[in-house]
Amino acid sequence: MQIITNEPGDFSYVIGPYKAPVATVQPGETVIVETLDAFENRIDSPDADITKIITLPYVNPLTGPIYIDGAEKGDTLTVAIQSIEVTRDYGVSCLIPEFGGLCGTVFTRTLNPSLPPRVMLHPIANNEVTFSQDLDIAPIPLEPFYGTIGTAPEVEAISSLTPGFHGGNMDAADVCPGNTIHLPVNVPGALLYIGDGHAAQGDGEVCGVATEIPTRGTLTIGLIKRHVVATPRVESDEFLMTIGSARPMEDAARIAFYELVMWLETEYGIERLTAYQLCSQVARVRLANMVDVQYSVVAKFPKRYLPRS
Amino acid sequence: MQIITNEPGDFSYVIGPYKAPVATVQPGETVIVETLDAFENRIDSPDADITKIITLPYVNPLTGPIYIDGAEKGDTLTVAIQSIEVTRDYGVSCLIPEFGGLCGTVFTRTLNPSLPPRVMLHPIANNEVTFSQDLDIAPIPLEPFYGTIGTAPEVEAISSLTPGFHGGNMDAADVCPGNTIHLPVNVPGALLYIGDGHAAQGDGEVCGVATEIPTRGTLTIGLIKRHVVATPRVESDEFLMTIGSARPMEDAARIAFYELVMWLETEYGIERLTAYQLCSQVARVRLANMVDVQYSVVAKFPKRYLPRS
Amino acid sequence: MQIITNEPGDFSYVIGPYKAPVATVQPGETVIVETLDAFENRIDSPDADITKIITLPYVNPLTGPIYIDGAEKGDTLTVAIQSIEVTRDYGVSCLIPEFGGLCGTVFTRTLNPSLPPRVMLHPIANNEVTFSQDLDIAPIPLEPFYGTIGTAPEVEAISSLTPGFHGGNMDAADVCPGNTIHLPVNVPGALLYIGDGHAAQGDGEVCGVATEIPTRGTLTIGLIKRHVVATPRVESDEFLMTIGSARPMEDAARIAFYELVMWLETEYGIERLTAYQLCSQVARVRLANMVDVQYSVVAKFPKRYLPRS
Amino acid sequence: MQIITNEPGDFSYVIGPYKAPVATVQPGETVIVETLDAFENRIDSPDADITKIITLPYVNPLTGPIYIDGAEKGDTLTVAIQSIEVTRDYGVSCLIPEFGGLCGTVFTRTLNPSLPPRVMLHPIANNEVTFSQDLDIAPIPLEPFYGTIGTAPEVEAISSLTPGFHGGNMDAADVCPGNTIHLPVNVPGALLYIGDGHAAQGDGEVCGVATEIPTRGTLTIGLIKRHVVATPRVESDEFLMTIGSARPMEDAARIAFYELVMWLETEYGIERLTAYQLCSQVARVRLANMVDVQYSVVAKFPKRYLPRS
Repeated sequence: MQIITNEPGDFSYVIGPYKAPVATVQPGETVIVETLDAFENRIDSPDADITKIITLPYVNPLTGPIYIDGAEKGDTLTVAIQSIEVTRDYGVSCLIPEFGGLCGTVFTRTLNPSLPPRVMLHPIANNEVTFSQDLDIAPIPLEPFYGTIGTAPEVEAISSLTPGFHGGNMDAADVCPGNTIHLPVNVPGALLYIGDGHAAQGDGEVCGVATEIPTRGTLTIGLIKRHVVATPRVESDEFLMTIGSARPMEDAARIAFYELVMWLETEYGIERLTAYQLCSQVARVRLANMVDVQYSVVAKFPKRYLPRS
Repeated sequence: MQIITNEPGDFSYVIGPYKAPVATVQPGETVIVETLDAFENRIDSPDADITKIITLPYVNPLTGPIYIDGAEKGDTLTVAIQSIEVTRDYGVSCLIPEFGGLCGTVFTRTLNPSLPPRVMLHPIANNEVTFSQDLDIAPIPLEPFYGTIGTAPEVEAISSLTPGFHGGNMDAADVCPGNTIHLPVNVPGALLYIGDGHAAQGDGEVCGVATEIPTRGTLTIGLIKRHVVATPRVESDEFLMTIGSARPMEDAARIAFYELVMWLETEYGIERLTAYQLCSQVARVRLANMVDVQYSVVAKFPKRYLPRS
Repeated sequence: MQIITNEPGDFSYVIGPYKAPVATVQPGETVIVETLDAFENRIDSPDADITKIITLPYVNPLTGPIYIDGAEKGDTLTVAIQSIEVTRDYGVSCLIPEFGGLCGTVFTRTLNPSLPPRVMLHPIANNEVTFSQDLDIAPIPLEPFYGTIGTAPEVEAISSLTPGFHGGNMDAADVCPGNTIHLPVNVPGALLYIGDGHAAQGDGEVCGVATEIPTRGTLTIGLIKRHVVATPRVESDEFLMTIGSARPMEDAARIAFYELVMWLETEYGIERLTAYQLCSQVARVRLANMVDVQYSVVAKFPKRYLPRS
Repeated sequence: MQIITNEPGDFSYVIGPYKAPVATVQPGETVIVETLDAFENRIDSPDADITKIITLPYVNPLTGPIYIDGAEKGDTLTVAIQSIEVTRDYGVSCLIPEFGGLCGTVFTRTLNPSLPPRVMLHPIANNEVTFSQDLDIAPIPLEPFYGTIGTAPEVEAISSLTPGFHGGNMDAADVCPGNTIHLPVNVPGALLYIGDGHAAQGDGEVCGVATEIPTRGTLTIGLIKRHVVATPRVESDEFLMTIGSARPMEDAARIAFYELVMWLETEYGIERLTAYQLCSQVARVRLANMVDVQYSVVAKFPKRYLPRS
């Protein structure tokens, strides 16, 4: 099986059309992809100085781009995640001054004094994450997913910190083993980028950082020709899901629900206003992140309510 | 057991300190409360003209105020919901022009043509809701809750359509049997209002209307003296929950998470920045509504991660 | 001329239908209205402890309600401001922790340490305001206006700190001598409330406080029968203006521009999409406040571009 | 004098570090820059089909990048606009379905029917713009400015439709003759892009389109070594100005005011909290756009209030 990763120093900090592919994949192929953690695997101690390690814009390194043979503008790329393995015995989380959901940031600018930086290492063993050795709480189940996955826009190169219509840094825990991600193809080869593994994450990722891990994932790449998705979709056994990324957060929710309604109309024959009224009774929502350059919201339609005839 | 409801024509369309109590309750007392549906039980046909039935501000009639003996400013009122019974064999949902999550509204003003009005009746039987007789989908489990519950502010009278620090129209499905709601007391007697029963609701209540029902609920009222909650809290067997209501939606999420972090610090001894970092790993979020005068977000901390020692 | 004010201790902290009128005025009548400053005239020293003086919700006392004879739901109340006199030789501004445009607030909740409180007295003489005796800058012209003016909603009592469709705490410097304010009438007598005089204010009122003053104003009250305004309007020699108050700020701007476009269509015969396209070339906007419970935006159409034939 | 423009077909639709410079300029040099209009000069009739002419992402073509000799990361680029000449005898505005301030868009997604497309040509002569030959209104003064001006980020390539910390599509009418723009330098040579001339524009550019024109501008390029601006600044005889671009709009206003306060502290010695309180009394605000990918707000400090000693 092809093992894909970037050379040290050659990871990507944007998702765009300007970087030469690091690998080529055929539709239908299953590959292994290796990723660094969001801090480039540079934190190995709670004493690490996070303000020195984060040297913007060189944060959240991505593996890629991966060129998918035959992909053209107007197609949809599918990524079926078979598994995600954690390749280190600990995860990292931290508090980053001027970043996070409950502090002033470069966008929500305030004159208040900053919060202090702080780093925690979270041991991982036996499919469990230990939050802290000082605080006696139950272990957190290991539920790995990719915080960042996306395809190149046509002319833009978008920071690996930013989610959007192209995917990107959505921090949606539904991008996990067992699920299939649908992404728009805007350029020849699609140019897929992946990274930002999380061993565990709360909805909203409120402090801005999950349990960050390097990963080795097994993915099956597919292509739906002449089929356009306006924003990322995820399908699981249980749910049809659409992801909206925008600010303010209600715009992210609007994008997600609009695309979910359109999906129900186009592929399942539920007239759009009926689908809208039905979603109001049965849909589920995950707040994926409330901290990134755009917020991400996942609208979910339980497949058990799809028409039976 | 005391049965509390308002006289016909005397329901309340605001939550405030200006209306005489319809009942007085002792702390510790269990009472039955009867509520009308959000349309005052006036819709009995899919042909109903919703644009005539909704005569603002006379929408979402509330039962109350209920005076709780001994409640004073600075206390917290608790409402433990024992059960909610549906008192009609159908629920109602509808599309209301210029109201909802995916259309122009009086706040998000647009020049686009309006969506059409539409009314559906949803039969309820055997603890199930039938969405439509035209669309063959699985029945929806009956999971009743109160869309609106709140206590009077000190000088404001807030529309029954608006959620806020006082509770109100939060449309949070966690306000359901088995859970206990904590509300601030701002005036003598607390002045509790309840209504807006929902038989089922999707997260976000995206079209603006759930499966609206009249109810008969059994509630146990309690009082925590000299204990202040800044925004509504809900406790279940599984979760500590805080509800933020604001616009834009990220401010609702910030309020909810801020209060959750403070709750963890004050009552469970987890220092606030540690609680913040922990929530980023394990919290859950429910988007309660994306359609009301303020949006409501529920931040949830799983009690299994509370300190064991 | 009738001189209208409230008894000490009887000022209003809400705009609503529940308080008995303090005066009755005939349409066409000119009256004098006296108002306290937003801090109830309680600050007379830079050493004042603002955190003790502000005892929510008892802030921003309003004069009123004033009953306008013959006003009924569906009419429009007009208030032509003849003059506003400052009745003290200084104004007050301050920094209030957790309130303002560049700090965490009760809505935009953050864990950062608060900003310190601070009070300044600004001497007023010869139609000029002296910002500070320590900082040598040019005097600021005295340009008094009412920060708060509004009419009672039908069932709500809205905090005097909140702007909205009823007017209220808009902090729009266009509510000044020479201009006429149009407000909706929702209840018999309209029930007009006025207060929150400002001697000077920057656009946006960024720290949350202007140069706060008590005032004596001369106003001519009028009534337009059977004429509905959805949100406050202001007319000057130069501009047609509409005020939107909402969060997020773009919603405030949408409300204001929507109403401006509708005004141009309804009363000046410019078809709405043409008016929309025209506003995109010639409109002006004032950001009135970025700090209150809702933000307020004034959309302005220069009357020199009204159709000449 | 050097005349700078791009070859036909070679204009840029992003602001980024990936395109080879079209010209090199020395600090202190005055150059002529020629730009196309936002629709690539392709509209010459009110019957043009705007939905065909706009083929995203190929909209708003920019001249550049221009390499400024000696510019390095950590410097500030200054662009003093001497003049902007309109190089066509008409401007163009239009209504674009799903784009604008008063309609559903790709961000604020709604299910409402779209507004119709519409194109207007606006004759320009004698320093005046004629809005319409059908509507008899006063001519609009010709007040040309650049809607888009910016410098390359370090790794991102940002759509020419998007404003941000790098400048870009701010639609700020203060980017006009007589004023000097300060932009961050993030890469060697700064890589300056310019375009999107407007003959006139209302605040907020509410329908999404101004009076769009091709231009020939005369600019003097300067460099401030080792001086960082976090977001674009503009200086005129009358004002110090800072431009914030973000969503929601209040975040744009926060960025602008934060940088204005910091400017007053750093370069004029007014302690930041005093500057904050002073801005609350005397600042002015321009709403630049309420329609682009990010909204832009200009905070303005009148220089007559700068310390005299």
